[in-house]
Amino acid sequence: MGSDYGIPRDLSTLQKARSFYKPLLPPCLQGTTVRVEFGDATTAADPSGAQAISQSFPHTYGQPLAHFLKPTSIVPDAQIINDHPAIKVGVVFCGRQSPGGHNVVWGLHEALKIHNSSSTLLGFLGGSEGLFAQKTLEITDDVLATYKNQGGYDLLGRSRDQIRTSEQVNAAMAACNALKLDGLIIVGGVTSNTDAAHLAETFSQAKCSTKVVGVPVTLNGDLKNQFVEANVGFDTVCKVDSQLISNLCTDALSAEKYYYFVRLMGQKASHVALECTLQSHPNMVILGEEVVASKLTIFDLTKQICDAVQARAEKEKYHGVVLLPEGLIESIPEVYGLLKEIHRFLRQESDDSAQLSQIETEKLLAVLVEAEMSKRLKEGTYKGKKFTAICHFLGYQARGSLPSKFDCDYAYVLGHICYHILAAGLNGYMATVTNLKNSLSKWRCGAAPITAMMAVKDYGSASGSITIGRPVVHPAIVDLRGRVYEVLRQNATKFLMDDVYRNPGPLQYDGPGAESRTVSLCIEDLDYMGRIKELNVYLDKVRSIVKPGCSQDILKAALSAMSSVMDILSVMSSPSNGNI
Amino acid sequence: MGSDYGIPRDLSTLQKARSFYKPLLPPCLQGTTVRVEFGDATTAADPSGAQAISQSFPHTYGQPLAHFLKPTSIVPDAQIINDHPAIKVGVVFCGRQSPGGHNVVWGLHEALKIHNSSSTLLGFLGGSEGLFAQKTLEITDDVLATYKNQGGYDLLGRSRDQIRTSEQVNAAMAACNALKLDGLIIVGGVTSNTDAAHLAETFSQAKCSTKVVGVPVTLNGDLKNQFVEANVGFDTVCKVDSQLISNLCTDALSAEKYYYFVRLMGQKASHVALECTLQSHPNMVILGEEVVASKLTIFDLTKQICDAVQARAEKEKYHGVVLLPEGLIESIPEVYGLLKEIHRFLRQESDDSAQLSQIETEKLLAVLVEAEMSKRLKEGTYKGKKFTAICHFLGYQARGSLPSKFDCDYAYVLGHICYHILAAGLNGYMATVTNLKNSLSKWRCGAAPITAMMAVKDYGSASGSITIGRPVVHPAIVDLRGRVYEVLRQNATKFLMDDVYRNPGPLQYDGPGAESRTVSLCIEDLDYMGRIKELNVYLDKVRSIVKPGCSQDILKAALSAMSSVMDILSVMSSPSNGNI
Repeated sequence: MGSDYGIPRDLSTLQKARSFYKPLLPPCLQGTTVRVEFGDATTAADPSGAQAISQSFPHTYGQPLAHFLKPTSIVPDAQIINDHPAIKVGVVFCGRQSPGGHNVVWGLHEALKIHNSSSTLLGFLGGSEGLFAQKTLEITDDVLATYKNQGGYDLLGRSRDQIRTSEQVNAAMAACNALKLDGLIIVGGVTSNTDAAHLAETFSQAKCSTKVVGVPVTLNGDLKNQFVEANVGFDTVCKVDSQLISNLCTDALSAEKYYYFVRLMGQKASHVALECTLQSHPNMVILGEEVVASKLTIFDLTKQICDAVQARAEKEKYHGVVLLPEGLIESIPEVYGLLKEIHRFLRQESDDSAQLSQIETEKLLAVLVEAEMSKRLKEGTYKGKKFTAICHFLGYQARGSLPSKFDCDYAYVLGHICYHILAAGLNGYMATVTNLKNSLSKWRCGAAPITAMMAVKDYGSASGSITIGRPVVHPAIVDLRGRVYEVLRQNATKFLMDDVYRNPGPLQYDGPGAESRTVSLCIEDLDYMGRIKELNVYLDKVRSIVKPGCSQDILKAALSAMSSVMDILSVMSSPSNGNI
Repeated sequence: MGSDYGIPRDLSTLQKARSFYKPLLPPCLQGTTVRVEFGDATTAADPSGAQAISQSFPHTYGQPLAHFLKPTSIVPDAQIINDHPAIKVGVVFCGRQSPGGHNVVWGLHEALKIHNSSSTLLGFLGGSEGLFAQKTLEITDDVLATYKNQGGYDLLGRSRDQIRTSEQVNAAMAACNALKLDGLIIVGGVTSNTDAAHLAETFSQAKCSTKVVGVPVTLNGDLKNQFVEANVGFDTVCKVDSQLISNLCTDALSAEKYYYFVRLMGQKASHVALECTLQSHPNMVILGEEVVASKLTIFDLTKQICDAVQARAEKEKYHGVVLLPEGLIESIPEVYGLLKEIHRFLRQESDDSAQLSQIETEKLLAVLVEAEMSKRLKEGTYKGKKFTAICHFLGYQARGSLPSKFDCDYAYVLGHICYHILAAGLNGYMATVTNLKNSLSKWRCGAAPITAMMAVKDYGSASGSITIGRPVVHPAIVDLRGRVYEVLRQNATKFLMDDVYRNPGPLQYDGPGAESRTVSLCIEDLDYMGRIKELNVYLDKVRSIVKPGCSQDILKAALSAMSSVMDILSVMSSPSNGNI
């Protein structure tokens, strides 16, 4: 572990310009007053797991949603917090580095200092290892100067992901007690946020006064649920990857002799591959979720690609680009069993269970396709030119990138929200922003209990069957009935045959494209939190219209309408209809 | 070969914005008059080869330099061309695609139409194969619309590079005759421009009226000499590669557990690797030129890297980034002989002699370093953590990129110059722009006979010895006595030990960084053409001062001074002192 964390560094012209950029704050986070409104108590999305989750998290399950309000909102029940004692907070990076992570630290630091200049922020050095070992760096303006809006996690470093064994949990608690932390902010993905929920529960049980807050930062984009629309890092990584995929498409079309097989980092779920496909329009993508749903074997996949190559050859096209998500390999049934064994073995020595990034699926498939095409050529069923594949793995090149404007803003705002959560005295919550596809001034800021994002059933396993385990925040897989996937299906044939390649170009910070969002974010039907609020408005209206003294007819109409609403909802929420 | 060249396509927001960008023209190319001033007859840089070159090129060797002048220049001998008959020109892409190539076509088309709207431009489809087969597409504004400032060669495609065998040369001549071309523009690197010179000579000999013009477009950046400062594509490719290398540096520093071994496309010379090192400050780079100069074996290289890894481990650093140029492998003496054999074999079936891009040097070295580190660990001479390398090859991802502003401008201007060369009736010339490190309005446009860039001696061979062959434009290798390399040497230790990583960031088209040039271009001591002009000013001044009628003393002083100038120059230009 290096000893030079947080040292100032020489920046390039662009890095310097970026270091001077300061994201705005949505109205609800402006000023020095924290205004919080609590919603109803939360439940788990899958009602069948609610019981199990509540048993595992007796102190932190069922807490209400929290909404942070702008000064002009008139909400009678809102809690107004004007008193801000100095507090001491720790922050730790967990898991794979994602562009924007540094801005969570910056936003949090800003918020702490705005509300009380005596508050302090400690960064744990070297990830969770640094937490256990109580190795800290005090975050100051000077320390942050050359890390604002910059990529990587090198301000603090990272190490192993997990805070899971009792030894680790106890070490974390000992650190929080020793350092007298009022809050511990955990920056990471599904695993780290599950760990955050467990820590919160354990701390609460043990009367440790440190509140634990999670922040959704993961390039995989798989920490998605009714409360979380997007993850910090996903936007940047998809943009950098798409640029490179598009460059490969242009290259393929210019030389007309190669097929590029491109594997994309993104863990089990195929969100990165799906987004990049919608950005770049490569000829083909095979999502892990499709493979699971159709129970495709490696032979099926080979045949599918070979048929595509052959169809293109008939149009005299001997080039192409095929995307393969990192998680594809463990979606293939016959590989799944084998990988489970390897997982078990690797877990003993590594944090990244399965080290998926090291399995060269793209090469495996390229070799199989090449062999099959040669066979077809010999048999005379294929009459085109020799098939040649060149393989790429995109991941490491992207996750160290300067973050996009969106990720800079999103992370910075999440950092501010972390302070608001602590000011409201909440424990076991995740910072959330909704309405993200709109401009920053319309973003809605809030917090949701992490336990409300948990489930005991795992719908994402490769076997296609549903497995039941301990409550965790599961990675959200690509919804094959969702809008984003639908757009892909509608365009798949055109993408395959017509080379309608599109290049989003390099990440821009000024001019056209600088404010762009991911395609997924723009077309997904999100804003759950917005709808919750909208529903409350309806309920309040009903209540204000149907006050004692209203006519019998109005009361009857209201009763009858509400009764049918209840009928519909009871049927939909019964365990046998549990949706993901 | 696809049949849909030049079709309009859907562009992303940024692509669209770029397609509306129109580069400016330097003053010397503005308006509808071509003003050309001829310099002295050219010679070859290496005087010892002059005789051989002049014998191979009796019709095209020794032609004068040409400078294109702005309207305000007062040069009595300048040729003013106001009459612009309609002409017919063909353009062909040769060799590896380089970002910006499309803008040569655009600039040329614009210049043709400005000077005579009846002139036509034909693009050959599918590279030199299309030239031989006389497959053309007429370039129009509509065809160009979605290809302006866009990457790749997909407007026209490319195939094999060479126009070299008598069969190929005759096919090219037959095409030019059949299509009644006044000019043939060859867009490519050292090989293609050598071919252009041979075509020009053959055409001249055979009284074929088509004039041949070369354009320096190669991502390798190795078509450099006294007349050519930079190549189209190099700027973009280095910027895209540097961005990715910097991302890997940030990634390495964040995770602190991997060494990234990164091989860079760029053929035999190490210009791309050197430029990227100066942009990104990775820990280490091994230039092919250093290996040749020091006759390093693969064992030496392994040891060098292992010693670096060990030195870093002593500072508790277990991560790093090592750059390896594509040409490194053939710079290693023991590999060179073997590769020569493979070359000979491959040349029978491929244009890219040696398919360097397919040899995974980075993996070879990673394996050797890993083995050596394990050995040292066992022997107890190394006491650090296990060495882990992850390998990357950057090339295909970069060369399809949207071109940088610099490459857009440079290529567009070169396209215009091609027309000026044809208008001046020149054959066997290359379009040149000098003073490139300054702003576009100060660029100097001209043309130089390709034969003046040729040599018979090859100083770049891996054996370190000088080989003599037929006259060709040799790739310029990195000058180990030059300023750019000196900057690398001065910083090498700091780069190795201090992790002073720098991220130029993604290519920008607006705001900070959009106008940046490569480090190499900025610090190299270029502007040969500027100095030629400056020298002529001195000579003219001497002539005007020492006119008949001046005093005897002045005449004596002039004679004495000029005589010593001559003494110095004769010694320096004698064949035994021939410099590269």
